[in-house]
Amino acid sequence: MINGFSFAGIPAGIKKNGRRDLGLILCDKPATAAAVFTKNQVKAAPVILGQQMIKKGVCQAVLVNSGNANCFTGEQGIKDARLCTQLTADTLGIPEDLVMVCSTGVIGAPLPMDRFTAGVPQLKTQITSSSLADFAEAILTTDLAPKTVEMTADFDTAQGPRTIAMAGVAKGSGMIRPDMATMLAYVITDAHISAPDLQHALAGACDKSFNRITVDGDTSTNDTLLCLAGGTGPAHIRDAASFAVFRELLETVCMDLARQIVKDGEGATKVVQITVKGAAAKQDAFRAAEAIAHSNLVKTAIYGEDPNWGRITAAAGRSGARVDQNKMDLYFGAIPLVRQGRWLGKEAEQKAAAVMKAKEISITLDLHLGNHTDTFLFCDFSENYVRINADYRS
Amino acid sequence: MINGFSFAGIPAGIKKNGRRDLGLILCDKPATAAAVFTKNQVKAAPVILGQQMIKKGVCQAVLVNSGNANCFTGEQGIKDARLCTQLTADTLGIPEDLVMVCSTGVIGAPLPMDRFTAGVPQLKTQITSSSLADFAEAILTTDLAPKTVEMTADFDTAQGPRTIAMAGVAKGSGMIRPDMATMLAYVITDAHISAPDLQHALAGACDKSFNRITVDGDTSTNDTLLCLAGGTGPAHIRDAASFAVFRELLETVCMDLARQIVKDGEGATKVVQITVKGAAAKQDAFRAAEAIAHSNLVKTAIYGEDPNWGRITAAAGRSGARVDQNKMDLYFGAIPLVRQGRWLGKEAEQKAAAVMKAKEISITLDLHLGNHTDTFLFCDFSENYVRINADYRS
Repeated sequence: MINGFSFAGIPAGIKKNGRRDLGLILCDKPATAAAVFTKNQVKAAPVILGQQMIKKGVCQAVLVNSGNANCFTGEQGIKDARLCTQLTADTLGIPEDLVMVCSTGVIGAPLPMDRFTAGVPQLKTQITSSSLADFAEAILTTDLAPKTVEMTADFDTAQGPRTIAMAGVAKGSGMIRPDMATMLAYVITDAHISAPDLQHALAGACDKSFNRITVDGDTSTNDTLLCLAGGTGPAHIRDAASFAVFRELLETVCMDLARQIVKDGEGATKVVQITVKGAAAKQDAFRAAEAIAHSNLVKTAIYGEDPNWGRITAAAGRSGARVDQNKMDLYFGAIPLVRQGRWLGKEAEQKAAAVMKAKEISITLDLHLGNHTDTFLFCDFSENYVRINADYRS
Repeated sequence: MINGFSFAGIPAGIKKNGRRDLGLILCDKPATAAAVFTKNQVKAAPVILGQQMIKKGVCQAVLVNSGNANCFTGEQGIKDARLCTQLTADTLGIPEDLVMVCSTGVIGAPLPMDRFTAGVPQLKTQITSSSLADFAEAILTTDLAPKTVEMTADFDTAQGPRTIAMAGVAKGSGMIRPDMATMLAYVITDAHISAPDLQHALAGACDKSFNRITVDGDTSTNDTLLCLAGGTGPAHIRDAASFAVFRELLETVCMDLARQIVKDGEGATKVVQITVKGAAAKQDAFRAAEAIAHSNLVKTAIYGEDPNWGRITAAAGRSGARVDQNKMDLYFGAIPLVRQGRWLGKEAEQKAAAVMKAKEISITLDLHLGNHTDTFLFCDFSENYVRINADYRS
């Protein structure tokens, strides 16, 4: 629970399976707000509206539906998203320009407006400060598990110690690729902070977390990461020291949610952290890590618990990063399997194969060309990913 | 059969399954030669040697093994590839610098040299002008079917009509991505042509065929496309008109092999041609087509016979190509499903779903922003891709 925020989540009949599909976050008073949206040029109607409304840096309520993305729905989609905004504002008795709406689900179908007309008033009756779990459920699509996190951080001031309370909730399981936060994620905090500072902190946290994960390499049309700072708590973020604490907390919360998304990746059985170090430039480390994290051949090998270092080094080789195959070292966990481009033999491979049996695996590729590092989180690739996505709409 | 060329393919014990794994192409006399190699910075030893030897533009024999890629094998790999070259030259009684060696298979294991010492002399005893099928089998890895094509083209000269005979053979099923010919492919012809002209024609043909296909988006470390022009036939390519005929024939042969590779893509059940038209620039058409062809979400939907136009348009949207979602038209075969960014309804979708049941599907995305077009061939993505690649080395 974060002081000043309340939540609701109900089944409104938008999803076919009867589960919760309409959720609300409500602040007691208008909150400072910042957001990051999809970089896909095909944007859902709520994203187009959200990019406009967030410019003022203030938001009091967020309505989210799952089961329908309201994307590729043309002018009607924009009208429908506006109607949802208006309906939420009228029902809650707040101004329209303080309401953000978000949608996730199937692309292309028109929003079933009758479900909103009936659902939003009902949603209002369910609002409590302890219903974050209901909200977390209501925003899920192919996710198997809801994703929430709560954390606090402390810092000292001349007036005594101050605590920041923060909570996060996210959905995302497929269409996950770094090119902005590829999912819906909401972070709320009781801290008092200016809108520009909040935007700055959020963009940085997004870059280090949601922009460093991948499930399947596709970028969603609806990605939205929204942070609301209610300002009801004791912490005022107005100097470098408190900002540093706030930023680190925000990064930790985002990273926790990002890890939960990868763990719940469609068909995933393992979470893998690939670290590329020794790169000649930051961009080289990023490119090599991204190529490895996206490689279907790497991901299927990990599913098969095979320390297939050839596929990992080959992915680095095609990534565009500067590499020298005769300088590469590769580790599975702490086990070296390749040194200066040479395979270390069957015994090393057996040890590496043992590492692959874990649910969480770390792989390190040292390029030995400089001192830049980058890290990606990704999941393996199983038959279930194919099954889930071959049958998604039927 | 192409006049002036002979072939062999035998089981030499390099593959575990006892199938043919050592092949040879031999020309009666040194042939004009051109080649295109992988752009992966991690290159197999035979690719490193091949890039050197092809510079002279002449080649008389090609030794190819499957079952072992001789990649990421360090200095020993280079020495082994040189030994293979020497062994082939000595056995055939030709100079070493007229021999190219190629390898494909598992990355990282040392080449089993005893199999070559025993195999190459045995290979020599099997050489005949009608053994192209044996060679085609010997170069396969996870391929289900051998890939060969034979074609002719005619043109007129002052001295009468002339015919070019051409044959092609390729392997490739996984690690297929356009960034050069992502496989091994050999094209032989009886035409007489200069090495620079041959290289020019080959690079162009590669760009239109092997660089426009994808199975899984990974670039191999061993990719080699080699063309040998024996010069034993009646056709001399020395003016623009005959060059145009030669180039078109070469493109057709390469395109045929490329299509066979996609059809035999790991786990593939369907071949899809995506055409992006109406792009503002050639690069936009390429990017959008490439992103759609690589999208796991698109590929799994096609496997599920689902005309999931949202995933196709979303992939175009994230591709970096200029797009306007309100201008896009999308067709499955001849059936329009999206016009000016609007879904055309359930009846259109049912018709599109019927199109998806075919083994070969064409999809057209019209961006309506210009007059540039590009086309990719790709396959769908089934559970079998995962199974094949999770178990590849075990």
